[in-house]
Amino acid sequence: MDLVCHSCESRFTSTNRKRCACGEPLWFDIDSTQFDWTDLPRTSGVWRYADVLPADPAEDVTAGAGGTPLIRAERLDEYAGCRLYVKDEGQNPTGSFKDRGSSVGVTYADDAGRDWVGTVSHGNMAMSMAAVATSKGVNCAVLVPVRIPETRLGLIAQYDPEILTVTGDYGQLYYDTLDADGGIEFVNSDTPLRVAGQKTVAYEILESFAPETPDAIVLPVSSGGHASAVWKALRELRDATLIEKLPRIHLVQTAAVDPIAQAFRTGADSVEFIDPSDTVAFSISNGSPPSGNRALRAARETNGTVTSVSEEAIKEATRRLASNAGVCAEPASAVTLAGLNKLSQAGEITPNDEIVAIVTGTGFKESEIDIDVSTTDISLANLKKSLEEIAV
Amino acid sequence: MDLVCHSCESRFTSTNRKRCACGEPLWFDIDSTQFDWTDLPRTSGVWRYADVLPADPAEDVTAGAGGTPLIRAERLDEYAGCRLYVKDEGQNPTGSFKDRGSSVGVTYADDAGRDWVGTVSHGNMAMSMAAVATSKGVNCAVLVPVRIPETRLGLIAQYDPEILTVTGDYGQLYYDTLDADGGIEFVNSDTPLRVAGQKTVAYEILESFAPETPDAIVLPVSSGGHASAVWKALRELRDATLIEKLPRIHLVQTAAVDPIAQAFRTGADSVEFIDPSDTVAFSISNGSPPSGNRALRAARETNGTVTSVSEEAIKEATRRLASNAGVCAEPASAVTLAGLNKLSQAGEITPNDEIVAIVTGTGFKESEIDIDVSTTDISLANLKKSLEEIAV
Repeated sequence: MDLVCHSCESRFTSTNRKRCACGEPLWFDIDSTQFDWTDLPRTSGVWRYADVLPADPAEDVTAGAGGTPLIRAERLDEYAGCRLYVKDEGQNPTGSFKDRGSSVGVTYADDAGRDWVGTVSHGNMAMSMAAVATSKGVNCAVLVPVRIPETRLGLIAQYDPEILTVTGDYGQLYYDTLDADGGIEFVNSDTPLRVAGQKTVAYEILESFAPETPDAIVLPVSSGGHASAVWKALRELRDATLIEKLPRIHLVQTAAVDPIAQAFRTGADSVEFIDPSDTVAFSISNGSPPSGNRALRAARETNGTVTSVSEEAIKEATRRLASNAGVCAEPASAVTLAGLNKLSQAGEITPNDEIVAIVTGTGFKESEIDIDVSTTDISLANLKKSLEEIAV
Repeated sequence: MDLVCHSCESRFTSTNRKRCACGEPLWFDIDSTQFDWTDLPRTSGVWRYADVLPADPAEDVTAGAGGTPLIRAERLDEYAGCRLYVKDEGQNPTGSFKDRGSSVGVTYADDAGRDWVGTVSHGNMAMSMAAVATSKGVNCAVLVPVRIPETRLGLIAQYDPEILTVTGDYGQLYYDTLDADGGIEFVNSDTPLRVAGQKTVAYEILESFAPETPDAIVLPVSSGGHASAVWKALRELRDATLIEKLPRIHLVQTAAVDPIAQAFRTGADSVEFIDPSDTVAFSISNGSPPSGNRALRAARETNGTVTSVSEEAIKEATRRLASNAGVCAEPASAVTLAGLNKLSQAGEITPNDEIVAIVTGTGFKESEIDIDVSTTDISLANLKKSLEEIAV
C-alpha cells in the first residue's frame, strides 16, 4: 500500500516514510471501493476490518483491541442537547482507544520482521504499545520526559518495556524518532500505522448505525491523529458508497491547551503551536499537534467545529458521565460531553441530532476529579425499617 | 420461568424467592434444548443470549456488558502448563465481570416496574450495580461495611447510588437483604438474576471455541455465584447438545481465605465458614460463601478442582499477566494463573490442554502490587546513537 499526503497529495511507496516532504503527515492510500458491511468476518474488534488495514494477523480467536460497545445514553440527552450515544473506548485492553493503533502497528512491525517497536508517550499510548508488544513477544521502547508522575511510570512499567527518560525538547523528540529510528518501528500518535488502526472506531460506529448514518461524531483532539483517523474512515466509507454524506466531525480541546480550536476560531489555514498550561485533561495536553492541520481540515470539510471547554466544564462533564450514564471516563474524554453542551447552547446542534461521543479512555487509571461522597449509617438490627424508609 | 434448587431440586414459581427451603441457593430453570449458535442476533454482549435469560431489553444498539475478548496468551503457556486463553472480563463497562449480572438484574427489575435495586458489596459489584442502575434511571442502594477504604468509596460514589454504611454482621446482612428487601430488588452475588447474567461469559467462551470445546475453564471463587453460573451454562449447552462433555471447572482461592478449597481437599460434603485473613486478593475475601456448596459441586461434577494459592504466588501471577500477556488484572483475578501453575506441577493439567482463564477484573482501579521500575536516561542530542545501542 502506498502512502499519500492529505494536503499536497504526494505519493510515497516506502512505508518507512511517515511524513511528506511538505511537512504534513502521511496516511495509507486504501482502496475501499469494494468494502461492504455484508462481507465481514464474525470476529469483533479491529481485525474485522482487515480488508482496509495495512496488516492482518489471521488470528483464530477474538482480538483484544476494538469491538467496544456503543451505548445509548439517554439520561444525558438534555445536557448534551442531542440524542447521545457513547462509544466507550475505555473498554479496550489497556483502557484506551490507543490499543487499536498499537495492535495494527505492532502486528505490521512483527510481520515485517522487526524486533523492536517504540513510541513517544508518557500516557495511554505508552501503556498500550508496551502491552501489545509484550503480548506478541516484540520489544518496546517507550520514550518519556524526565518529569513523569510515579503512578504513571508504574502503569507503564508493569508491561515491562524499555523506558527511556529523555532530556531535551519532547515535541522535537516526536519528529526525531520518526527519522532516526535505529531499527525501531516508532508508532507515534499520528503515524500512518496508528491512524490506520484508530480509524476502525469509526468503522464500528458506522456499522452499528447502518443503513442509517449518525449526524455527528464528537471526539477530543490532541495530536490530531485520532481526528484524522475518523475523517479517513468516513472518506473511505463514502468511497465504498456505504454513506452519502459524511457525519460532522466535532473536535474538542481543553481551553488550557487549544491550538487547533484557536486556528478554527480565527479562520487560520494552519495551526500555530502554543505552550500548554496545566489541565485536568492531561491526556490531551498537546500544544504542538503534529496532525493539527489535518484535524482542522477534518472538522472544516465535514461542516464540523473545533471548540474548547473550561476546566470546570470538564470536571462537571466527567461527573455527569459517571452519575448519569454509568461511564467512568478520564477527564480528557469528558471534554466531548462538555463540548456538546456548549455547541447546543450555540445552536450548532439540535435535540433530534443523533450524535456519537467517543469516550477515549477509562477514568480508572488515574483520577484527579473529586467526588462528593455522602453515606447514611444504618444498623443490621433495623434493616427492614431502614430500607423501607429509603425506597418510599 | 421457575426457580429450582441445584441440590434438592425443589421448584418455586415466585421469582421473589432467592433461596430454597433447604437453605441452598436457587437458579432459573431454563429450557435450552432449542438453543443453537446459528440462531443468534448480530449483537455482541449479554443480550446475544437473551433466549436463555430471564430478561430481554430489546435494545437497538450494542449493550455495554459482555462481549469481552478471548485472547490467546501463548507467552504464558509455559508458566501455566497448558495452551492458555485469557477471557478478559476487565473489559466490561465498570472493569469487572459483575456488569453481566447487574445488567440482567437491573433490566429485569426495571421491566417489573421496580424503582429500586440494591446490593451488598463494597467492591466490584457495588460499582457495577450503581453504574448500570443509573444508566437506566433506576435507584440503587449499596450496602457497605462501616470500614471501607476511601478510594473504594469514591469509585462507588461517582455513580451516585444511595450508600448505606451498615453496623452489624456483614455476612448475615447478605441473607437479611434477600428477605427484607422493602421494595428493593437485591441482586447479590449468588442470587438467581445475577447467576443468569454471569453465565453469559461461558456462553461466549464456548461459542468462540465451537464446534470444539476447551478442556477446562479456570476462575477465581469467592461467593460461589460466578462458579455456579459457569456450571449452569455448561449444563444448558449440554442440554442443547452443543457440547458433549463438560469442560473441567477449576476454581482457585487465596490460601488466606479458602473455605471451599478446604472442603474440596478434605472431601467434605459442604463448606464450613471461616474467618478471613488479610489478602492482596481482597475481591475474593469471602469466608462465608453463600454458594459455596454449589461451587464445590461445580468442580467435583466436572472432574475439576478447587485449589488455593499463596499471596506470593498471586503477586507473581499478577506481574506475569501484565508483563507477558499485556493484561493488567486485579490480584483476585490473577489467582487463575497462579492456580494453573500449581495444577500443572501436580499433574492435573498437561501442556496440550486448551484452558481458558477468566480474568474477572481490571487492575486499573486499585493496585496493591509493587512494580519494579527501571529507566535509562538518554538525551535528545544523542537520540540516534542511544536507540541503536538499545535495539541491537
